[in-house]
Amino acid sequence: MRRIRIPDATIRRLPIYLRVLRELEDDNVAVISSADLAIRTGFSSEQIRKDLAYFGAFGVRGVGYSVSQLEDQLRRILGLDKEVRAALVGAGNLGTALTRYNVNRHKDVKIIAIFDNDPAKVGKTIEGVPVYSIEDMDAVIRNNDIKMGIVTAPANSAEKVAELLVRAGVRAILNFAPVKLSSTDSVAVRNIDLTLEFESLAYYATGEERRPETGS
Amino acid sequence: MRRIRIPDATIRRLPIYLRVLRELEDDNVAVISSADLAIRTGFSSEQIRKDLAYFGAFGVRGVGYSVSQLEDQLRRILGLDKEVRAALVGAGNLGTALTRYNVNRHKDVKIIAIFDNDPAKVGKTIEGVPVYSIEDMDAVIRNNDIKMGIVTAPANSAEKVAELLVRAGVRAILNFAPVKLSSTDSVAVRNIDLTLEFESLAYYATGEERRPETGS
Repeated sequence: MRRIRIPDATIRRLPIYLRVLRELEDDNVAVISSADLAIRTGFSSEQIRKDLAYFGAFGVRGVGYSVSQLEDQLRRILGLDKEVRAALVGAGNLGTALTRYNVNRHKDVKIIAIFDNDPAKVGKTIEGVPVYSIEDMDAVIRNNDIKMGIVTAPANSAEKVAELLVRAGVRAILNFAPVKLSSTDSVAVRNIDLTLEFESLAYYATGEERRPETGS
Repeated sequence: MRRIRIPDATIRRLPIYLRVLRELEDDNVAVISSADLAIRTGFSSEQIRKDLAYFGAFGVRGVGYSVSQLEDQLRRILGLDKEVRAALVGAGNLGTALTRYNVNRHKDVKIIAIFDNDPAKVGKTIEGVPVYSIEDMDAVIRNNDIKMGIVTAPANSAEKVAELLVRAGVRAILNFAPVKLSSTDSVAVRNIDLTLEFESLAYYATGEERRPETGS
């Protein structure tokens, strides 16, 4: 039997649904209609139903969704019912910042190891997270069951770093290096390129009559 | 006469072209063919020609593009021929990190003011950049001709902060708060939501047979 491949766009919407459900739970809302969920998330109820249908049926017709149940289901689908362990490569300004941000904020995805090739950094900790030599990457990632990588290495080493991460067992990479890495069959990659964001926004910041075509 | 609205997708590709041209310049390459530029950027030569055509004709048929000329033109189009001044709102971990990253890296887009409502932070500096009270935002932004804003405020104040920035004259916002802000006629917004990135990547990190549908 052929497995159904879920569209990445669906996967990207799930955390948005999850966020809204968490807010509803904080507000002690027990049940939400498909229409209200649409308003709150900004996606159509057809879209939401279609996305959720990939994973089974969730709502009760004419009633809606149980907030806590759907929240649990989404957390399980995303793999957030257990702690997701991540490693960060590149202990520079951005890497340090992201570690600090992560340790203080993300409870479900947690940076538990940092790698750098600067001997002055190796052996230290950042926000309590140990900094290892790149040479120890394979062992540390395998031994700690790390499945996610965050790349803040320089552009010229980002591809190599991603290769090492994947070889050690990492399945998903968030890449901040200013070079585009591509997803493959063995790894899902998302690129966040701050320089490109700053430079393309400069167009709108500096022009007299410039505004984006899309509402993105 | 109706002004031509440039697609945002085109504007987002320009900094990628610019990056490749900078690399070529560093390698002392004077002229590049449309085909080579396509290979280097990952976009088709038709796409590149179409994007550049919005701003006039640049290449010489049968020869290609002058690297330094096209670089200069792109910098001018993006508004990067002059320093673009930015303000950051929210001097927490991420804000501090982004300031450090920006001051040490970005030469064309420069954070020159930080705003926070914590009296303990106001009056201090981060990486040499002064931290002001939110109350002084309007005056500081106007007096320093700041046109770009970076929002690292909490979710519940991000929308308000964006409004204040726009009212003071900011035309482009990079939003890191975990809430989606939308572009309007008076401001271009890009959202970078780290929590959503981490959580959607968790799906691929934790599943057994999961990989993204698209190569993004």
